[in-house]
Amino acid sequence: MHNTIIYLDNNATTMVAPEVLEAMLPFFTRRYGNPSSMHDFGGDVEHDVEKARNQVARMLGAEYDYEIVFTSGATESDNMAILGTLQYYRDKKHIITTKVEHPAVLNLCRQLEREGYSVTYVPVDREGNLDVDFLFDSVSDDTAIVSVMYANNETGVLFPVETIGAFCKQRGITFHIDAVQAIGKIPVDVNALQCDLLAISGHKFHAPKGIGVLYVRRGTRLRPLLYGGHQEKARRPGTHNVPGIVGIGTAADLVMKHLSNSEEVANVKRLRDRLENGLLSQLSNAHLNGNKNKRVDNTTNVGFEFIEGEAILLYLNEKGIAASSGSACSSGSLEPSHVLRAMGVPFTSAHGSIRFSLSRYTTEDEIQYTLQVMPEVVNRLLAISPYWDARNKKGKSMTQLAH
Amino acid sequence: MHNTIIYLDNNATTMVAPEVLEAMLPFFTRRYGNPSSMHDFGGDVEHDVEKARNQVARMLGAEYDYEIVFTSGATESDNMAILGTLQYYRDKKHIITTKVEHPAVLNLCRQLEREGYSVTYVPVDREGNLDVDFLFDSVSDDTAIVSVMYANNETGVLFPVETIGAFCKQRGITFHIDAVQAIGKIPVDVNALQCDLLAISGHKFHAPKGIGVLYVRRGTRLRPLLYGGHQEKARRPGTHNVPGIVGIGTAADLVMKHLSNSEEVANVKRLRDRLENGLLSQLSNAHLNGNKNKRVDNTTNVGFEFIEGEAILLYLNEKGIAASSGSACSSGSLEPSHVLRAMGVPFTSAHGSIRFSLSRYTTEDEIQYTLQVMPEVVNRLLAISPYWDARNKKGKSMTQLAH
Repeated sequence: MHNTIIYLDNNATTMVAPEVLEAMLPFFTRRYGNPSSMHDFGGDVEHDVEKARNQVARMLGAEYDYEIVFTSGATESDNMAILGTLQYYRDKKHIITTKVEHPAVLNLCRQLEREGYSVTYVPVDREGNLDVDFLFDSVSDDTAIVSVMYANNETGVLFPVETIGAFCKQRGITFHIDAVQAIGKIPVDVNALQCDLLAISGHKFHAPKGIGVLYVRRGTRLRPLLYGGHQEKARRPGTHNVPGIVGIGTAADLVMKHLSNSEEVANVKRLRDRLENGLLSQLSNAHLNGNKNKRVDNTTNVGFEFIEGEAILLYLNEKGIAASSGSACSSGSLEPSHVLRAMGVPFTSAHGSIRFSLSRYTTEDEIQYTLQVMPEVVNRLLAISPYWDARNKKGKSMTQLAH
Repeated sequence: MHNTIIYLDNNATTMVAPEVLEAMLPFFTRRYGNPSSMHDFGGDVEHDVEKARNQVARMLGAEYDYEIVFTSGATESDNMAILGTLQYYRDKKHIITTKVEHPAVLNLCRQLEREGYSVTYVPVDREGNLDVDFLFDSVSDDTAIVSVMYANNETGVLFPVETIGAFCKQRGITFHIDAVQAIGKIPVDVNALQCDLLAISGHKFHAPKGIGVLYVRRGTRLRPLLYGGHQEKARRPGTHNVPGIVGIGTAADLVMKHLSNSEEVANVKRLRDRLENGLLSQLSNAHLNGNKNKRVDNTTNVGFEFIEGEAILLYLNEKGIAASSGSACSSGSLEPSHVLRAMGVPFTSAHGSIRFSLSRYTTEDEIQYTLQVMPEVVNRLLAISPYWDARNKKGKSMTQLAH
């Protein structure tokens, strides 16, 4: 394996920012007290927890710090949002979500269907855009919650959550946003979005794994998922994960700093576009999956016809490049991604789709190297592809064809 | 505040062991990949996750590594054990637990009562010993689960979980042990205990906060608490908290090392006994709460009649000593501890009860200093106690009385 990794899989997880680790370190071996303690050794740590809560509240534009509930991650946050709402509105048995959600929402909804709930899965078009009218038409008096992601993890495509928020508010339906893939990439403002609930995950924006947040708007009716101690106003009991909380607070500060640096923001987009345009122009079997314009700046999902994504990834791996096919959460299965299937991407191409996801740490050199490696990888695989061979008897390489 | 803290609150939380932090560090900023990834950068991390799983399995005497499920902590583990069992055995509506459990079990059970379940809370005697016959007599065909703690967090008193395990196995009832306060203090062997489920929390044995385990015996019927990705064989979805998992694995190794070092084990008991005997002999208003013999070696709970525990803690805090009254999880309330109430400790004394909990890092000097400070603190408070004044018109100090 290569000594240095070219990490283009930031939608799966991110490096903990050095500033974040530095902020966390004192809380392991020196300031390790329990913030719920009577003594200052623990009690003082509560100030650090509350500081982090304020940092996250500011990142999300939340009016009150106590609207921020710390959880173990976005899977818990999503489950808590949906189950907590259903537990409160026990007479309502209908849920609206989309076909392209993360498994934390989709698999929970499938389980709820087995328990007697009815779930509407709103479709997307060929570019991954949500059919918002379909969503609006699905609402009934029986609808307890609408749960929609902000940015898709596989394609980066953005959903019109602001419009859905206004609609839900007017109809008085609880609206939950899975904003995991939006944070750090675009500004997220819970009041502009008019959502009641919003889930984020620390490790997607340079905080550590094992810490997340559920934003719960003041006045939102929600039952806890867990019962226990008084922590988080009994909405989420359990000893505070202090290093994780301090880490996500610091990471929130860094997100605000990054997003206010227009040069840095533009650079991520420039590198992503450079990679994407390079692939699409060099390789004639390549095409973009998802809406080119309405998406986050760090993600590109490119389909390579007639070859296998897993094989591409293995070659890239040999070259020290980390990328992804589908989401890491559903890897291990050989099924094509449920997102690309919902978009109607043909199997020949869905199977060969690769997601490259950049971060603010991605460099020009890394993109350049990736652009050197990819044609070689794709052509090697095309050369042994039975499908491609059938279409192209002479077996010319893709770059030869493209030029 | 003092520069160095004398930390005698290890049942609330513990210092992360330096070896644990060292093992965790690479996984924040260098080996930060997602273990569910296709690429080696993430996939290699899976080996570290599995190594940690094996370390925890060995500490618990588990036969199969996959019986170890990583969670966010013991509150989640306890909730998952009880709710997951009830979700499976939907026709059974009876739960047996004890009056002195941690809030993670007690408050969940209270919530379940509101939802129509019936819960038997087995009582304890004046020394905190469980009425095991009462427990046995409570079992019916409607009983879905028996949930009992191993060691009490406030008194350290041990429950005969092995006997209960044998009984439950024979009756075919799921048996869950909250072993949070036993780990690191006594050997815990899931096969000797014959439990189906067992919860532990990393931060109680020198791993970080935010990581826990639920042991799930092979073949145990259990529904997940959370739905989402395929992690932990879909029993506990969500991106693995890799640093936390590596940390709890390393901490498990250190526990095995500590418990096999009879000198080190004996030293914790010796220091605890020295503290306890010193307090009981110097202060005539002091008495021990809980069974003196059947308890873990690190804990002593001493009641000081006619004075307030909170006031003692504040004075100790000024002197740089961290201890606890009741559990940190229920602090903030002025009610006496539910554990001491269940034991029938009189209010005059329960209010003045202090828990000192040591660790393998506690030193002779720290205990000696605490023994110097405590009489001064207690006497100062007795001097202004209206109750004590009424009993002892001359206002002699307790040490004068004791000698």
